[in-house]
Amino acid sequence: MAPRQNEIPDQSLYTSVRQYVSGYDHPDYSCIFVHAGAGYHSTENEQKHLRACRNACQAAMAALKAGGTSTDAVEIAIRVLEDDPVTNCGYGSNLNFDGVVEADASIMDSFGRTGAVGATPQIQNPISLARLILERSSQPMTLKRVPPNFVVGEGAVDYAREQHFPVSSNESLVAHPARIRFSKWQKEIEYQEIMKRRGKAPDKSRTADFSLLGASTRPIQEAGSALPPTDKELPGTPQLLEQKVDLVTDTVGAISIDRYGNMAAGSSSGGIGMKQPGRVGPAALIGVGTFVKDRGERQAATVVSGTGEHMLHTLISAQAVNRIYDSNDELDAMKKVINEDFMGSQGYGKANIWGEPAIGVMSVKAENVSSGKRLISFVFGHNTDSFALASMTSSDTAPKTIMSRVSREPKLAVGGSSRLVQMQIKTHTEEKPKKDKMSKRLGRHDKKYNVPPSQPKQEKKATIAPGLEGLHLDNRDGESSGVSSGDSNRADCGSWLIDFSDKEGQV
Amino acid sequence: MAPRQNEIPDQSLYTSVRQYVSGYDHPDYSCIFVHAGAGYHSTENEQKHLRACRNACQAAMAALKAGGTSTDAVEIAIRVLEDDPVTNCGYGSNLNFDGVVEADASIMDSFGRTGAVGATPQIQNPISLARLILERSSQPMTLKRVPPNFVVGEGAVDYAREQHFPVSSNESLVAHPARIRFSKWQKEIEYQEIMKRRGKAPDKSRTADFSLLGASTRPIQEAGSALPPTDKELPGTPQLLEQKVDLVTDTVGAISIDRYGNMAAGSSSGGIGMKQPGRVGPAALIGVGTFVKDRGERQAATVVSGTGEHMLHTLISAQAVNRIYDSNDELDAMKKVINEDFMGSQGYGKANIWGEPAIGVMSVKAENVSSGKRLISFVFGHNTDSFALASMTSSDTAPKTIMSRVSREPKLAVGGSSRLVQMQIKTHTEEKPKKDKMSKRLGRHDKKYNVPPSQPKQEKKATIAPGLEGLHLDNRDGESSGVSSGDSNRADCGSWLIDFSDKEGQV
Repeated sequence: MAPRQNEIPDQSLYTSVRQYVSGYDHPDYSCIFVHAGAGYHSTENEQKHLRACRNACQAAMAALKAGGTSTDAVEIAIRVLEDDPVTNCGYGSNLNFDGVVEADASIMDSFGRTGAVGATPQIQNPISLARLILERSSQPMTLKRVPPNFVVGEGAVDYAREQHFPVSSNESLVAHPARIRFSKWQKEIEYQEIMKRRGKAPDKSRTADFSLLGASTRPIQEAGSALPPTDKELPGTPQLLEQKVDLVTDTVGAISIDRYGNMAAGSSSGGIGMKQPGRVGPAALIGVGTFVKDRGERQAATVVSGTGEHMLHTLISAQAVNRIYDSNDELDAMKKVINEDFMGSQGYGKANIWGEPAIGVMSVKAENVSSGKRLISFVFGHNTDSFALASMTSSDTAPKTIMSRVSREPKLAVGGSSRLVQMQIKTHTEEKPKKDKMSKRLGRHDKKYNVPPSQPKQEKKATIAPGLEGLHLDNRDGESSGVSSGDSNRADCGSWLIDFSDKEGQV
Repeated sequence: MAPRQNEIPDQSLYTSVRQYVSGYDHPDYSCIFVHAGAGYHSTENEQKHLRACRNACQAAMAALKAGGTSTDAVEIAIRVLEDDPVTNCGYGSNLNFDGVVEADASIMDSFGRTGAVGATPQIQNPISLARLILERSSQPMTLKRVPPNFVVGEGAVDYAREQHFPVSSNESLVAHPARIRFSKWQKEIEYQEIMKRRGKAPDKSRTADFSLLGASTRPIQEAGSALPPTDKELPGTPQLLEQKVDLVTDTVGAISIDRYGNMAAGSSSGGIGMKQPGRVGPAALIGVGTFVKDRGERQAATVVSGTGEHMLHTLISAQAVNRIYDSNDELDAMKKVINEDFMGSQGYGKANIWGEPAIGVMSVKAENVSSGKRLISFVFGHNTDSFALASMTSSDTAPKTIMSRVSREPKLAVGGSSRLVQMQIKTHTEEKPKKDKMSKRLGRHDKKYNVPPSQPKQEKKATIAPGLEGLHLDNRDGESSGVSSGDSNRADCGSWLIDFSDKEGQV
């Protein structure tokens, strides 16, 4: 059994990186996974998206290496993505119908603690406010009042002010590209509504004119983090534009495992463009956008990106966590999540829920397979054109990134990899762990730490389910794009998790 | 197989009761179940709570009998509870820290459609606004924008205004008892915070003085729908007050099955007293407060009441639906929901999530057991002192109510009943069903309707799992309070579902 930190560390609030003493830690064990949304990333801007992911991984890994928790790592990774205008979260988010940035974010840890904000204006780093809510949720209030787990709208701004959390002006959160998209959509809606009042069909060529500035012929909910069109793009035809302009569904997300063996996951999003003010999307919802399940022996976490209104009634992140947690074939589980749980849900099909269903799912699973060995599986899937992902472990010198693409119908790509991690367990005889304050206070010392001292490092291969050792990017129609074939023999110390091609975007 | 209406009827928006033509309907099949919160209901005020439940059932049944859908019935039942100041929802809700009524509500139907509002001020009937959002979610918007499923805060008020939905002043939603509770809590918090600043422990006798006005020594989150204290209560000791003043955890809920065989569920709540402005509780959250699962052959729905912050990470309503959907022993499933999924969750125990966990769960399940026969099971459970419930079917002349109570530790009560319903199936040969507009348009006619004409009404007993025919109120320590022992032989046409004792409150 892998040693795990089973008590919540005594964390001082709202410091980005905090270190706490535990009986054990495993410097080579920590890892961070991020995604920057599912949708359509133009090949031209691909590097911008992947750079954002890379930066996020590096910042999070610095925190993990300094002894930070998985919750720290998730918060930091998402902060980096929020601060980057290329993503649809924090600074540079889509504007709502009133021209305001309203943020959704959620975070969950191994202990079932959660924090979330929804439709919250004036916050540049909603993930940090969500994290603050998570931390405060285990602190008592006067009169035995229960601290909130989910705060929305103006109330969340008041909450932030009370907690001395930075509150920005709306203007400072609006990036130039978001303003351009907003103006375009505003005009387009105006035009369509005028035509509707007149009882006429909108002039397609007129609509196409508007689309030259951005989202083209696609549904607006997919036009998340469009970059400002270049001069080259402007005179193009809509067909050409479709290949050059980003059409990314909102949410970004991160999952981390720290050296203490705990997991955390988080999501952040500016939501769909021109959304109803006050609309809350999946990134704010535990079980929909973000979920973690941890039973010690096994852990799984999922974050999703896509059309939120379709995810809501399917509780898709919790569903994905459960499927992957229980499955021996994570790739197959991921396919079922997308094809059955999401596309085949009771709501979609029978009921006319509006909009095209699109989804990207990123999951991580960790389980004890033999004494001192832990199997970490990373798996993702999407039915959108592309999905931007990255990972970094404490043994990597640089993050690994991937722009997973699929073009053939029916669109479905799944991929991932798995690694056996040899835990560097400090046993009681090898080195007696210091009893930290927490374990002293609680008068307990986790029995999981007691590994027989005479036991040599088990180099024998652990029992792994077939098909797990090397997961492959897989297309439902049989097309294989050849990503991330794992080699479990190489991995004895958790040095890396994802064997993505070095040539980014060439998957 | 029971015939079911598999397409969403073409509903005109926001009429309380609407009728639509379908090939089949089953006038004796419809039913409504409501609860008015789990917590502690004083015996003195018990009748007020049960009367509210009764009124809710009657109004909903009138709609069902007039051809209304389960969604109509749930909306109407909850509207009645919202309009009654005795419940903590709509008019008479708890006030938040700023003295404002902020409502949470959600509704879900058999088709996976959902609508929800959270932390929404100025709405007397939040369930109706949630229902409006549900209806609008399947209607297109200009520019392929996706209609929202979940709208919060001031944005929800704007949404209501745009949709010509009634918006009230805050003052008109504040009932006198809620104002009294608010003043009391305000003073108590002020006092405690003064003492905290001075570094002194609050004077217990002083605190007790404050508690004379209402919530006594219990956590404030349980002090939902307290009635104004009577003169008799005011001079009493805290111990005496505990037995006379209501301490009810917020949420109310309803579940209905309509004559078309569809199910819906909904919840509404004013949230915890003195809550953080903008705080969203479980009543607003699909999967936490409200959930419906429908696969045609089998359906299940759950609504919950209790301390929301503990329910969030357990996705407790979805979890209950899944357990009860899959189980042959619903009482046992309900016990597991409360003991394992809720009390034994990853968050509770390991993590110091603040507040005392309290829950009431109400579930309904319907499944086809043999040709033309449908088994309806109703099951509830709570670990609070009491739980107020009621039911009515289209064959009942009056609603049946129950105040389920449990006093012995460890507190856990489960109960319910089940009935076989003989569907009055109009077969193709007996009476050819009119093809309604919807089925014509879709060019399909559900094959489930084809029941062999020569087949006599099967009077033979259907195969029912042991322990299901008559569910009993059950206490974990073996105490049985003898409620609702079913007699499935009596039920051949869905005439009743719950055999509660006629003497209300005497369970």
